[in-house]
Amino acid sequence: MAILSDAATEVLVPLAAAIGIAFAVAQWFLVSRVSLSPSSRHDDKDALLGESLIEEEEGLNDHNVVARCAEIQSAIAQGATSFLFTEYQYVGIFMSIFAVVIFVFLGSVEGFSTRTHPCTYSNGTECKPALFNALFSTVSFLLGAITSVVSGFLGMKIATYANARTTLEARKGVGKAFITAFRSGAVMGFLLASNGLLVLYVAINLFKLYYGDDWEGLFESITGYGLGGSSMALFGRVGGGIYTKAADVGADLVGKVERNIPEDDPRNPAVIADNVGDNVGDIAGMGSDLFGSYAESSCAALVVASISSFGVNHDFTGMCYPLLVSSVGIIVCLITTLFATDIFEIKAVKEIEPALKKQLIISTALMTVGIALISWLALPAKFTIFNFGEQKEVSNWGLFLCVAIGLWAGLIIGYVTEYYTSNAYSPVQDVADACRTGAATNVIFGLALGYKSVIIPIFAIAVGIYVSFTIAAMYGIAVAALGMLSTIATGLSIDAYGPISDNAGGIAEMAGMSHRIRERTDALDAAGNTTAAIGKGFAIGSAALVSLALFGAFVSRAGVKVVDVLSPKVIIGLVVGAMLPYWFSAMTMKSVGRAALEMVEEVRRQFNTIPGLMEGTGKPDYANCVKISTDASIRQMIPPGALVMLTPLVVGTFFGVETLSGVLAGALVSGVQVAISASNTGGAWDNAKKYIEAGASEHARALGPKGSDCHKAAVIGDTIGDPLKDTSGPSLNILIKLMAVESLVFAPFFAAHGGILFKLF
Amino acid sequence: MAILSDAATEVLVPLAAAIGIAFAVAQWFLVSRVSLSPSSRHDDKDALLGESLIEEEEGLNDHNVVARCAEIQSAIAQGATSFLFTEYQYVGIFMSIFAVVIFVFLGSVEGFSTRTHPCTYSNGTECKPALFNALFSTVSFLLGAITSVVSGFLGMKIATYANARTTLEARKGVGKAFITAFRSGAVMGFLLASNGLLVLYVAINLFKLYYGDDWEGLFESITGYGLGGSSMALFGRVGGGIYTKAADVGADLVGKVERNIPEDDPRNPAVIADNVGDNVGDIAGMGSDLFGSYAESSCAALVVASISSFGVNHDFTGMCYPLLVSSVGIIVCLITTLFATDIFEIKAVKEIEPALKKQLIISTALMTVGIALISWLALPAKFTIFNFGEQKEVSNWGLFLCVAIGLWAGLIIGYVTEYYTSNAYSPVQDVADACRTGAATNVIFGLALGYKSVIIPIFAIAVGIYVSFTIAAMYGIAVAALGMLSTIATGLSIDAYGPISDNAGGIAEMAGMSHRIRERTDALDAAGNTTAAIGKGFAIGSAALVSLALFGAFVSRAGVKVVDVLSPKVIIGLVVGAMLPYWFSAMTMKSVGRAALEMVEEVRRQFNTIPGLMEGTGKPDYANCVKISTDASIRQMIPPGALVMLTPLVVGTFFGVETLSGVLAGALVSGVQVAISASNTGGAWDNAKKYIEAGASEHARALGPKGSDCHKAAVIGDTIGDPLKDTSGPSLNILIKLMAVESLVFAPFFAAHGGILFKLF
Repeated sequence: MAILSDAATEVLVPLAAAIGIAFAVAQWFLVSRVSLSPSSRHDDKDALLGESLIEEEEGLNDHNVVARCAEIQSAIAQGATSFLFTEYQYVGIFMSIFAVVIFVFLGSVEGFSTRTHPCTYSNGTECKPALFNALFSTVSFLLGAITSVVSGFLGMKIATYANARTTLEARKGVGKAFITAFRSGAVMGFLLASNGLLVLYVAINLFKLYYGDDWEGLFESITGYGLGGSSMALFGRVGGGIYTKAADVGADLVGKVERNIPEDDPRNPAVIADNVGDNVGDIAGMGSDLFGSYAESSCAALVVASISSFGVNHDFTGMCYPLLVSSVGIIVCLITTLFATDIFEIKAVKEIEPALKKQLIISTALMTVGIALISWLALPAKFTIFNFGEQKEVSNWGLFLCVAIGLWAGLIIGYVTEYYTSNAYSPVQDVADACRTGAATNVIFGLALGYKSVIIPIFAIAVGIYVSFTIAAMYGIAVAALGMLSTIATGLSIDAYGPISDNAGGIAEMAGMSHRIRERTDALDAAGNTTAAIGKGFAIGSAALVSLALFGAFVSRAGVKVVDVLSPKVIIGLVVGAMLPYWFSAMTMKSVGRAALEMVEEVRRQFNTIPGLMEGTGKPDYANCVKISTDASIRQMIPPGALVMLTPLVVGTFFGVETLSGVLAGALVSGVQVAISASNTGGAWDNAKKYIEAGASEHARALGPKGSDCHKAAVIGDTIGDPLKDTSGPSLNILIKLMAVESLVFAPFFAAHGGILFKLF
Repeated sequence: MAILSDAATEVLVPLAAAIGIAFAVAQWFLVSRVSLSPSSRHDDKDALLGESLIEEEEGLNDHNVVARCAEIQSAIAQGATSFLFTEYQYVGIFMSIFAVVIFVFLGSVEGFSTRTHPCTYSNGTECKPALFNALFSTVSFLLGAITSVVSGFLGMKIATYANARTTLEARKGVGKAFITAFRSGAVMGFLLASNGLLVLYVAINLFKLYYGDDWEGLFESITGYGLGGSSMALFGRVGGGIYTKAADVGADLVGKVERNIPEDDPRNPAVIADNVGDNVGDIAGMGSDLFGSYAESSCAALVVASISSFGVNHDFTGMCYPLLVSSVGIIVCLITTLFATDIFEIKAVKEIEPALKKQLIISTALMTVGIALISWLALPAKFTIFNFGEQKEVSNWGLFLCVAIGLWAGLIIGYVTEYYTSNAYSPVQDVADACRTGAATNVIFGLALGYKSVIIPIFAIAVGIYVSFTIAAMYGIAVAALGMLSTIATGLSIDAYGPISDNAGGIAEMAGMSHRIRERTDALDAAGNTTAAIGKGFAIGSAALVSLALFGAFVSRAGVKVVDVLSPKVIIGLVVGAMLPYWFSAMTMKSVGRAALEMVEEVRRQFNTIPGLMEGTGKPDYANCVKISTDASIRQMIPPGALVMLTPLVVGTFFGVETLSGVLAGALVSGVQVAISASNTGGAWDNAKKYIEAGASEHARALGPKGSDCHKAAVIGDTIGDPLKDTSGPSLNILIKLMAVESLVFAPFFAAHGGILFKLF
């Protein structure tokens, strides 16, 4: 019925993924041309001469600077690699155990029987035995986890490859540095998006070899992919978040507050740990997180589609609509990237932020056209979607609207986040102004700002939910989430750009490069702060939609038709679920606080015991600080991780699917608010501090300069915001998504054996 | 069928109220024997001589001190009275308009027709016309508002009557001062509890003259009483909260931080405003708030009972069960009070907190027996309760269990709150310890503590909800809330005790009394901080149960049988509802911040322009500071108030009852968490500061003394906590209750004409 044939779909999806990967490799090649070894620079002489005519800069031929940068970069890369390896070892053990749990729980649904059973939704056909569903779920769980590990690790490798190169390019001007940082971000963005799509596509095709026409079983098993991706992301975000903020807070408390030395000063023993943290927390964590969201929203859409007319009629192209949307997304983002790297050119500092914002608008506008096209090509004019027990008729244009509303809701959330966290607008300036009366009013205003910034995103999400839900039930919400994530390659490019610039600044400071270069990297970094907040806004918004879609899929799969708030089982779930984000945040906040205290004591000890450290003649023991951050984050990521992973299992097993539905809904509606307010409060404090430091306006200069009482108050706010915006806030996305996808995977078990406690009493 | 006859019920309820009022008057008489006019002291010579033999104290006959205390007290009382009058004027206008809205909306349900209509639940009987229901609802709304005004005002009068008397008694020893403060608290507690009960009882009996056998209409109209009480409480809490914290934060920021003068120093121009604030915020606000909770839970229980077998069979004693529980509560609390004032005696500082905690245990234990007794006497062995469309059979022992579980859940919440906010335990000590590394870690640890303190109360509430809901549907939850509030007289006594002691300390400081006396009042105050936190815990816990019960009553009355999370209308309500506490907190936090900035500037101006102010020779302009607080709070209480009052109207009218149900559920589950964490975080910071100041342990002395870096960090935390614990946090109770009771009152209108937007599209 659709215009696009099944064969064309089979070609288009892997082709888009391949193009994305090729593009990433091409970008990487361009970045790699910035040489880090002094000797090889001679080959580039001609190019160099040409450039130095345009921008006159000092030190372009200073081989010592290049060598120092290379040395620092290698220290950061080593620290990050060794942390990630340690982390993956621990998480690997956990994942293996959890894989066994999945197999045993799901296998037990029909008593480990190897007999086929009648399908639930396709009448009259036989579906594969539950035992094999258990097996394939376990396999796709591991596949998701491995893809997530690869995503995070590759991201970190690229970022630590690019940071010193960005520093060196900053010698030639802000435009060159921007392009290097942005291209490196794009390597990560396109690799992750294409990789995630490709693995999912290959897995579906391989699983089909066994499942044949049993699409119910096939796409049930595929949900394991989302669970694997998200579980890994949880540990990545929490572990990385604790690592980076323990180092950051610890370095700042002693360095900036007590010793009055600048940020990233090489005398500070925690400075390498701080820079490593950016790569393992913001880069690897964020990469795993967004990959998880992408995998989950695809899985949620696929599992609902499999029990709708696409699945029942075996319409492969219709079934693959979610994957086709992502494929179009990769192509659209590719074109969008060219606007930043080739079509426009950055010439001044103030052009950076608009250039990044333009990326969002261009990708959203192009993608709207792309969605319209693919909806017309890949979908039949009319089809039906499963809606809690009945089939609902939907048109292809209706579904286009669902995807588009998700996409545009994302843009609105991005813009609101920017408004509340960029120091170009009054909210952050008000917070900076409150520093006049000290840290306390700064914190009060910052908290109020975070609370306020929740309003419009929530309305945007609510409208998105209402429209897509009304049009196409839970499938509508799943594709809306996918719409928000369809420009993920661009989103990730922008996100990764931030920490790369941050690191570049750190390296410039540590390598003792000139003030002008540091100013350029600072400008890149300030824009990166805002884009980081926007990235978090996207991540939270999409997480809300994704987890609602997963929730819907869970409910469908568990055979629940009504989740009635007027039932005691549901209402207690709702109340307790709404509490979970607080419990989780309490753990992560305290972990950061405690690890930071350890770090502070170590840094103080080194300043007090290593002779000549303050004078720059003694060498600090960077490795010890790296070790403290590593140990603390590995140790402390377990309890919050266990809370999230065990809650659905415990609630589902002992209290049953109704209470679990309540818990998921409660965690969703409460977690979104906590996450948005925490991220934006933290982002605002950070930029309020930067606003005072930069002193770009009359008002800002009245509050400054660095070291004034106002600035000290602003630093306190910034420090408080660190764990809020980089540990608790972003981890909460994963909390709500992960509990939902886990419930979905275990739904057959809970439906069969859950609610032991209520059965007993 | 019940043992207690209707005639006996008609006697018992007013009798209990009368006993309560008489007891309050007796306590007031005992307090008034502490004379504030120097001349009359001569009459007491004998008593005085006797006492001075036991406790040797200086200055007992220093008439100047007494005169100064009297003068300060009168300034505080004047400030409080004038603020409350201004506040009541503005709120009065609002209330009048809202009364018209109620009448018009409810009258329009049947087109202002004066004809009777068939009853909804009592088959075959005729019920009174909707127009008269509108009229009586409006009357009971005004009655509730007036009772609330009287409650708050009386409380304030008593507190400002008692504060200087407590200071003077502190000259004779901590025991005497404790008894004076506690007795004054009891005056307020018993007056409010008895008054609330009596007015409700009289209103029911008067309304019955018109309604006769139409109990559906009668108790529908009575719900206006709860709405009136709670609307007034909202403005009281928000206005009073902004007032008190603007003054407190403003006074501290300049006085303690910049000028380094002690708290309550008479040179600080904001000192009178600060003390006035305690009386209008903590006393009048809290009084109105708890009266509102009490009125609402009674109304929720009554309206559900009226459509259950009690109402359908016209069983008056069964119908009055909620009032009888409250009556027993008054008697139980009366006995409990004697334990504090007459049976035990406080001899040392460390006995204060246990004495207050004993009050909670004694009243809970006695009340359990009281509930058992009244459940046995007043209830038939079996009866049926309306449960969303069907009738559910309940036994009298089942209902006893519902009330008892509410009562004990309250005690658990109280104890957990104490654990997290008292500086006798490790959580607060950890927060104090985090001050070692500065304000930032103090704030991070404090926020984490607040989040963590949510866990056990939420489980207690969840268990309470599950048990009472399973036994007796929404009626079970309503009586569980009533159970938690049944010892309200004791709860309020303890609550009021706190601000009275706080004021007493302030007066001692301002009157220049000796260090020893200040130490005694400080000890009273420290215990008061913890009890204030406990009081807030109770208020929040009961608010959660009350609003759930009101929610149930609303749903029943609006004819909704299922609130399905899987419906788009409900889920968007849920998401937006969960956002409201954040929107509301953003407003109140920012109001406090902005008003505090104004106050800071005024205080700074006075210090800079009034000659000799710092030296104690110039006189500060207290009145101007009082005016700033008054103006700011009156102006700024309108937007948050409007948000809460308009939301149910707008949502119900435009989106209908389903979405409104979602909004109520969302606000409930999210608001409880925000409220508990905000209150406890603030309480913990306050006591962490007090812990360092008091220096009672080796650890505390290592962090101190006053003025050390640690102490400064602690003061910052304390200041941030002020608006959290005294403005945002406690106002959120009212937000969730008020939206629910308003929805209940307007339910017939929404059911008839609501959801315009969905009808149009």
